[in-house]
Amino acid sequence: MDRRTFTRTMAGAAGAWSLGVPSASGRGSKSPEVRVDGDRINANLATLSQFGKNPYGGVSRVAYSQFDKDGRAFAMQLMAEAQLKVEIDVAGNILGRRAGKDPGLKPIVFGSHIDSVPDGGNYDGDVGSLSAIEVARTLHANGIVTRHPLEVVIFQNEEGGTVGSRAITEGLTASDLALVTKSGKTIGDGIGFIGGDPSKLAAGVRARGDIAAYVELHIEQGGTLDAQQLDIGVVEGIVGIGWWDVTIEGFANHAGTTAMHARKDAMLAAARFTELVNRVITSEPGRQVGTVGRLQAFPGAPNVIPGKVVLSLEVRELDAGRIDRFYRRIRTEAEAIGKATGCTFSYEPTHQSSPAICDPRVMQAIAGAARNIGLTTKYLPSGAGHDAQHMAKIGPAGMIFVPSVGGISHSPNEFTEPADVVNGANVLLHTVLSLDAG
Amino acid sequence: MDRRTFTRTMAGAAGAWSLGVPSASGRGSKSPEVRVDGDRINANLATLSQFGKNPYGGVSRVAYSQFDKDGRAFAMQLMAEAQLKVEIDVAGNILGRRAGKDPGLKPIVFGSHIDSVPDGGNYDGDVGSLSAIEVARTLHANGIVTRHPLEVVIFQNEEGGTVGSRAITEGLTASDLALVTKSGKTIGDGIGFIGGDPSKLAAGVRARGDIAAYVELHIEQGGTLDAQQLDIGVVEGIVGIGWWDVTIEGFANHAGTTAMHARKDAMLAAARFTELVNRVITSEPGRQVGTVGRLQAFPGAPNVIPGKVVLSLEVRELDAGRIDRFYRRIRTEAEAIGKATGCTFSYEPTHQSSPAICDPRVMQAIAGAARNIGLTTKYLPSGAGHDAQHMAKIGPAGMIFVPSVGGISHSPNEFTEPADVVNGANVLLHTVLSLDAG
Repeated sequence: MDRRTFTRTMAGAAGAWSLGVPSASGRGSKSPEVRVDGDRINANLATLSQFGKNPYGGVSRVAYSQFDKDGRAFAMQLMAEAQLKVEIDVAGNILGRRAGKDPGLKPIVFGSHIDSVPDGGNYDGDVGSLSAIEVARTLHANGIVTRHPLEVVIFQNEEGGTVGSRAITEGLTASDLALVTKSGKTIGDGIGFIGGDPSKLAAGVRARGDIAAYVELHIEQGGTLDAQQLDIGVVEGIVGIGWWDVTIEGFANHAGTTAMHARKDAMLAAARFTELVNRVITSEPGRQVGTVGRLQAFPGAPNVIPGKVVLSLEVRELDAGRIDRFYRRIRTEAEAIGKATGCTFSYEPTHQSSPAICDPRVMQAIAGAARNIGLTTKYLPSGAGHDAQHMAKIGPAGMIFVPSVGGISHSPNEFTEPADVVNGANVLLHTVLSLDAG
Repeated sequence: MDRRTFTRTMAGAAGAWSLGVPSASGRGSKSPEVRVDGDRINANLATLSQFGKNPYGGVSRVAYSQFDKDGRAFAMQLMAEAQLKVEIDVAGNILGRRAGKDPGLKPIVFGSHIDSVPDGGNYDGDVGSLSAIEVARTLHANGIVTRHPLEVVIFQNEEGGTVGSRAITEGLTASDLALVTKSGKTIGDGIGFIGGDPSKLAAGVRARGDIAAYVELHIEQGGTLDAQQLDIGVVEGIVGIGWWDVTIEGFANHAGTTAMHARKDAMLAAARFTELVNRVITSEPGRQVGTVGRLQAFPGAPNVIPGKVVLSLEVRELDAGRIDRFYRRIRTEAEAIGKATGCTFSYEPTHQSSPAICDPRVMQAIAGAARNIGLTTKYLPSGAGHDAQHMAKIGPAGMIFVPSVGGISHSPNEFTEPADVVNGANVLLHTVLSLDAG
């Protein structure tokens, strides 16, 4: 029985979620024996999954839909039960406030989101949101009052581009507000629909230093923790992303009458480019990833040599300098492909996001909390974007990952073991307490 | 001044198109000094190009359009001027008949088509059609009566799948007739529109032995003759075509969170497959070609590893056994790609056409006629499909190719030098005379 299985079994068996083990270090956590009510979190997850439930499994609770609004009402009810002071900010984010002992301190903020992708699952966002509410309820139930004020946050429209967290950290543009979302509503109309005020967004933007810390619990969405049978991921940062549209120009010609040596085949050049991306990205150790996910060939008929291919190139990596270096190496090596195939390559950047590095103090608090509970940990980057990457702009931020079975997410098959959900919630609880004490 | 340039200059300078050189072999051609009126052919080509002319160049005279019908009327007028007995057969093909001396002989048939692809050019089909009419006119002007009856044919809807020639050689199916064409009409309605009778198609199907020979003059649609500065292509056959839809199944996953080694990337497998096709096809000497012209990746987003790719594989080659062998070798070698990428390959044949081998006697007649006129020749396969491939089922068939500048076709930029058009028409004239004498 390995470490993780042991913990899982314990979690599944013990109603009180107390290991009865005193903190190994005692650093930060004043009440290491305090535990969340794990059954309640998992029961709440099951209830939340009813809002937008699909008959074939999973959920479609896209932001600004009626399902989203109903799910948010349920979350607000849970917040009220946790004795949080509930409000919807101008951007439509749900805030649950709890006063601290020291009114001069900035709040510790923790939470996630409850909107889903179309045909999504019931763990992405939901685990962190309901665990955050449960943490507040546990503090109340145990009569613990922190030094810092606390804010449980449920960000709106994370899946449509981390809209809620962007709105309160860097602000939204007029073109952001005009964007039509999966709900059919524009972001501007959607914010009004869920109780925000799109005309007052500027007043909701927070400045650097306005928060003491931000912590988010989330499923990994990758398969590392699950494959290595580890309990908790301590997120080192959220990778930066580079997107380019790569246009390959050859010469469209009759596939029957044009000899092989006389071709300028843009598809062949695209094939060699796709292989090149794989080779360059895997040629160095590290967690960097590179993907060709979209490809269009023109004219796209079986009997015509493609004269043009447009494909997407994505590179993700925690170090922005390495993203640029991989991109430049791909461009340089693609020149030889162009020469050999008679094609030309051109590149247009379509999206760039900077890496967000997690705060070392928050990472230490997470790792310490996990260790104190007896959970195994691994430091790892987040390959996916999260609200935390925007919150990192206004204060120290960190993320707790729990395993996602098979690394599956954005799918009805998304699944996290109930025991892992509870582990994550307990780590969140003690991370907040540690940061408060720190 | 090379051979071809010399001939071109002669052709451009001499109004009577007579080289004044007696036939080297004398085989077949009773009147080697007879020549077509080259200026008239090129003038008629210019007139025909007005029907469906595009403002940006080229022509869109798709089958069953009003432009097609008007162009056909012009061709029938030219046939009448050539003293041909004009009729439209039940399939909508235009026939211009000329009686021979021996009523017991089957007709020698020659011609081509005048419909175009959308945004096509003015040489594909037109050159062979107007030259065939000119050949008949030249015979009349010179008082030459052949032993065999002659039939000048203009097949309908060649570009939409050699419809007219299929109709009179193997027949059309109900599903053929229901197919909606580029004109917006079904093939069945289209045949009625141009003067055929879709209800009587069965009566128009000819049997093997119903023709003495079929000869078609056409632009090469490839760049071989133009690149090698040769006058006349003696077509050895029309390549067979194999089409397959290749489905590559991997596993769609988050492109940010799924490590490179944990992927089942169908796009990477597709890239390696495309390279494999190129490598296998070019690994042996010969004129075979292999093409991946269409590729769809699912779901097709920059941030999702494609879980599925469907692509088209086309192999063309004059030897059906070699097509099969190339296909099997590609399948076998793709297995290693599947193993390395964690993907599976499946293959569905979507179209197969058998090679049509040209008749040796017709090829000799073409080569002899060209030599007698002083033109350079090259034996080569046709990589494109033509009406001749169907006519080969009912009698000895052959094709004469003239150079197409840059090998461009199905484009407004399609161009064949006027002198080359005339060379082709003269070779057609003497090929018909040679076959008649043979």
